[in-house]
Amino acid sequence: MHAVAIIGASGYSGAELLRLLAGRRDVAVAPVTANTASGERVDALYGDLAGRVDLVFEQFDPDRLSGAELAFVALPSGQGMTVVPALRKRGIRVIDLGGDFRLPVVAEYEKYYRHGHTAPELLEQAVYGLPELNRDKIAAAGLVANPGCYPTSAILALLPALRHSLVEVRGIVVDSLSGISGAGRSASVEMSFAELNENVRAYKVLAHQHTPEIESVLRTATGREVSVSFVPHLIPITRGIYTTVHARLVSSLSEADAAELYTEFYRDMPFVRVKRQIPQIQSVVRTNYCDITVTVQARTGHLIIMSVIDNLVKGASGQAIQNMNLMFGLPETTGLGAGALESKPVA
Amino acid sequence: MHAVAIIGASGYSGAELLRLLAGRRDVAVAPVTANTASGERVDALYGDLAGRVDLVFEQFDPDRLSGAELAFVALPSGQGMTVVPALRKRGIRVIDLGGDFRLPVVAEYEKYYRHGHTAPELLEQAVYGLPELNRDKIAAAGLVANPGCYPTSAILALLPALRHSLVEVRGIVVDSLSGISGAGRSASVEMSFAELNENVRAYKVLAHQHTPEIESVLRTATGREVSVSFVPHLIPITRGIYTTVHARLVSSLSEADAAELYTEFYRDMPFVRVKRQIPQIQSVVRTNYCDITVTVQARTGHLIIMSVIDNLVKGASGQAIQNMNLMFGLPETTGLGAGALESKPVA
Amino acid sequence: MHAVAIIGASGYSGAELLRLLAGRRDVAVAPVTANTASGERVDALYGDLAGRVDLVFEQFDPDRLSGAELAFVALPSGQGMTVVPALRKRGIRVIDLGGDFRLPVVAEYEKYYRHGHTAPELLEQAVYGLPELNRDKIAAAGLVANPGCYPTSAILALLPALRHSLVEVRGIVVDSLSGISGAGRSASVEMSFAELNENVRAYKVLAHQHTPEIESVLRTATGREVSVSFVPHLIPITRGIYTTVHARLVSSLSEADAAELYTEFYRDMPFVRVKRQIPQIQSVVRTNYCDITVTVQARTGHLIIMSVIDNLVKGASGQAIQNMNLMFGLPETTGLGAGALESKPVA
Amino acid sequence: MHAVAIIGASGYSGAELLRLLAGRRDVAVAPVTANTASGERVDALYGDLAGRVDLVFEQFDPDRLSGAELAFVALPSGQGMTVVPALRKRGIRVIDLGGDFRLPVVAEYEKYYRHGHTAPELLEQAVYGLPELNRDKIAAAGLVANPGCYPTSAILALLPALRHSLVEVRGIVVDSLSGISGAGRSASVEMSFAELNENVRAYKVLAHQHTPEIESVLRTATGREVSVSFVPHLIPITRGIYTTVHARLVSSLSEADAAELYTEFYRDMPFVRVKRQIPQIQSVVRTNYCDITVTVQARTGHLIIMSVIDNLVKGASGQAIQNMNLMFGLPETTGLGAGALESKPVA
Repeated sequence: MHAVAIIGASGYSGAELLRLLAGRRDVAVAPVTANTASGERVDALYGDLAGRVDLVFEQFDPDRLSGAELAFVALPSGQGMTVVPALRKRGIRVIDLGGDFRLPVVAEYEKYYRHGHTAPELLEQAVYGLPELNRDKIAAAGLVANPGCYPTSAILALLPALRHSLVEVRGIVVDSLSGISGAGRSASVEMSFAELNENVRAYKVLAHQHTPEIESVLRTATGREVSVSFVPHLIPITRGIYTTVHARLVSSLSEADAAELYTEFYRDMPFVRVKRQIPQIQSVVRTNYCDITVTVQARTGHLIIMSVIDNLVKGASGQAIQNMNLMFGLPETTGLGAGALESKPVA
Repeated sequence: MHAVAIIGASGYSGAELLRLLAGRRDVAVAPVTANTASGERVDALYGDLAGRVDLVFEQFDPDRLSGAELAFVALPSGQGMTVVPALRKRGIRVIDLGGDFRLPVVAEYEKYYRHGHTAPELLEQAVYGLPELNRDKIAAAGLVANPGCYPTSAILALLPALRHSLVEVRGIVVDSLSGISGAGRSASVEMSFAELNENVRAYKVLAHQHTPEIESVLRTATGREVSVSFVPHLIPITRGIYTTVHARLVSSLSEADAAELYTEFYRDMPFVRVKRQIPQIQSVVRTNYCDITVTVQARTGHLIIMSVIDNLVKGASGQAIQNMNLMFGLPETTGLGAGALESKPVA
Repeated sequence: MHAVAIIGASGYSGAELLRLLAGRRDVAVAPVTANTASGERVDALYGDLAGRVDLVFEQFDPDRLSGAELAFVALPSGQGMTVVPALRKRGIRVIDLGGDFRLPVVAEYEKYYRHGHTAPELLEQAVYGLPELNRDKIAAAGLVANPGCYPTSAILALLPALRHSLVEVRGIVVDSLSGISGAGRSASVEMSFAELNENVRAYKVLAHQHTPEIESVLRTATGREVSVSFVPHLIPITRGIYTTVHARLVSSLSEADAAELYTEFYRDMPFVRVKRQIPQIQSVVRTNYCDITVTVQARTGHLIIMSVIDNLVKGASGQAIQNMNLMFGLPETTGLGAGALESKPVA
Repeated sequence: MHAVAIIGASGYSGAELLRLLAGRRDVAVAPVTANTASGERVDALYGDLAGRVDLVFEQFDPDRLSGAELAFVALPSGQGMTVVPALRKRGIRVIDLGGDFRLPVVAEYEKYYRHGHTAPELLEQAVYGLPELNRDKIAAAGLVANPGCYPTSAILALLPALRHSLVEVRGIVVDSLSGISGAGRSASVEMSFAELNENVRAYKVLAHQHTPEIESVLRTATGREVSVSFVPHLIPITRGIYTTVHARLVSSLSEADAAELYTEFYRDMPFVRVKRQIPQIQSVVRTNYCDITVTVQARTGHLIIMSVIDNLVKGASGQAIQNMNLMFGLPETTGLGAGALESKPVA
């Protein structure tokens, strides 16, 4: 039995972690901390967990976590770095779902997140937690920086093309649509139903903190100076990210070859499904899958790649569980519902 | 390993059965039939099942089902009765998710469903598949009539009050709101997004075929002539039913006593959660739970009961799995996600 | 040119008043006040008004309103009574869209609104602003209490039946569904998109402040002690109220007769459309109409009445404009879009 | 009084034309034809028009249209060309809301629309009905090809940049999001609520018939070979298009200068609002406005332009009315609600 803690468990990522762990017999969860909700029952905030999670939110106190082998930190960016050092000092392995340990360069962090970084000494040991990129490093890591939701979809869309040098690395266009749960559980007029329903708006155009995350991960992965023009949009759905990438091919390529190359690239990755049909969010909602489709526009020399994920699962908590599985030496898919049905004919 | 077949698997109930069974190691599914989609892969219709269900829809042929121990029939009402006799003849146990075997009186069936009944000889052996009412009979049944979605929510809301003779049995008001998936997978202008979004409409007011189902089940359960004034409404959500019941108390009763009585009534029913807060659909979506809250209006002598379910889970496929578990002698909750999390403190 | 002011113009009702007045050549609007937004342009908050409303929110100051003939007060309940006396003292006619002057009995106000009433001396002169009930009194009024959204739909549904003594007056069931804009423009987790989307929940069950409003208006209109069992529900749409009423007939009545009686009752009311088809919200969104349909369930002796309105139009600002038209001696429909199309054949 | 007919009036564009014309005193509508709905009342299909439009759908018969000065043709693409010749022969001016007369080259039409063109002789006289581009030609035209919804948003976004040669003309990226009403009123599983709600999908990637429309209009407007990489996406809202354009600047440009240039370009266009804040669909829903915002990403040399419209108004019927106004010599904004409020201070 592995003992895990969840720090900052009252937000949507924390609740999703509990949903995913509620079915596990090999993991025990405790404590779950949430300073703003301490003393409240988990199922008072998340009614669907009634009867499945019998826990009360507690105040965060690192000294009460000594029994935990691993801690998920699901705090807003800027707060993760205030608790992670204490956890690491106690030998607890950490998966941070926030943005504090994803960017290797402090200056870039401070530019996009607009506050100082108080634990820069941990940046070097942090492993970027995208299993499709860093499976082995994650397995051995003490601190995993769980990827952002947009970067997960954009990087998985671009990795094969960039690794195979199919496209130009400058000025790649990334237009993404996100469901509202990505903005977290918060009280604001902007996030109220009446303002978002039947509405769409782009936001943080070119200034989103996931821009340097996408660029730095792809830079490390390819050794080249990738730059993206990234525009996120909020759309009135609860879960899901739809990313459409336009990149310029360096030489002509058939659509079939592109698809074949993507299929081959992800052959051993259980949660990436390269599809021939155009992907849709409905296919991945409440799953840990990322569906990807590639298209070639010969006339303009563009490679268009579409990828979809559930922002709370593959874009946050599902990916964190996938990372936990790797860190515990378990099959990557444990508790994540892939490949489960025995479908051999019965007659 | 139990072998089960799904007849009429291309609709929303069929797909939901596959989602729920995809995680089971103790059940093998084959074949899945769907005459209109035969030859197509399941995951071409339901993209989320890619990688989890490796099956192709087949034509229905009872002679190819001999290996099946049980068959789910997920056909529209009126079509179930055309296949169930052949299945029963071959000794296959059946859970029919349609309406063909729920009403004990043929005349009532023909009045509300507006066509003849071609297998009346099976009505007597059919067991109404509400485990909270008929657990033992279901375990032994050859043919289970899986309840309708509205009746599930209405009957669970009313059973304790009626069994304890708290309320008058005539003219009980049942107002229900249903998500659109309840209408099935169909091509019509009426069910198109642009007609239903930002819209609400009642339909089949007082003429819905679930009216006699609610009444006859409650009549059998209480031995009294229950009558309801039932108005279903379509609201723009995909999943969920919200039922608000108004009944007249026969004598005064405190809200606390009412709640206590309901809690006691459902103490051993793992999927009914009697709550003190007002229930909401979000708490039960994609679960097999029914959440119920009772309120008393002393001034008018009304008992108000609110119940919520996911129409595709507790209102259809989840309840069918619950019934299957009972029929196979398995714990009722197997594969349905209740009570799973080991939550003992780790420190 | 009539000069009108809007006090509390930054909420949804205020914005809707501006939308409706933006097309008028016979009304000038100024000032618009909103203490929390003072100094901001109206179109910075409501982008659709850019190019149509060239105004800036101001601080409320009764001494700067001397040019106004009439003021709409669109403040939350409890705040209206703090400004209305000053307006009335200056001879300005007032239409209050809040709840402060709708209940004739102070004790009932204080029980349901949970704070004291500071201007009880104005209650006597306040006219309940439902034109279908009080057209003449409204025309002459100095202070109009604009009806609540739920009461508008419930009272219009019940008036004909009660005036004609068709139904029992005790324990009438009123189940209503409301779009989210009815809750106003506010920052709270409860009203956030992620909490309301794909969700339904009843709220303030039997305790909603519109309960005594419905009862007292109907009591005055009929001279009998009407009591209702009222359950409001929040559903994930922006605009619209769907009200389903169940009342017990005192003697049998055919559906045709009921429909005829309703049609007759509303013959001269331009904004009430009695329909034979089941009403739907889509038919009234962004209009000032109330659509009503009546049904009889002979078996249980129930009269079921369904009514729909747009909560921001007939349920608030449209009705306020209708009242303003009456107060100014204008045709009731001016600027409200009824009966406009010249449809005579051209050939 | 101008007499106009609507051919194909039962679809969403036809209904929207009726909504917009219902308020006009200077236009009489008759007949409205719809072969599939002939004999039905308009308000039986569109309940919101009850009391405002007293018309019955008729069979199309060009000989009964002799009294009409102008006809709107709101038929699906491929059907417009079967009726327009008969109308033009009778001297009736035509605004075709479909795609049959938008592309100047027959071969391109046949490639993208996948059927032959039966009235190529009319292509030369057809004027592309974008008032911001062709105001004078429209005023004099006999046949106006009303623009597609996506092209309206994309062309208005790109015109200033291309006319001023700010950006490269090849490989411009156009990612658009559309509400579902853009797909028309139709019965299909694909367009059903349950398939579209909580979902997003791209469609006709690089193959949409609006691609050549955007390219050919911009080619004519600029004299250069513009090519676009256009990906439309369906999102779960009823109305609205959000278009995000990424183009490569030919030389560096400040964001302020870009915004100034756009503002200047559209100074005399009453329905284009160049804004500094990021646009949102809610600001244009049910209006004829197009809101545009420009952003510069100096790092990658990209100009990002976002534009929003209501697909049924500025993207179809509102624009058609704007064109009709020009053809009748009326102010362009007549009946379209721009600039109406008298907002001078009253005190």
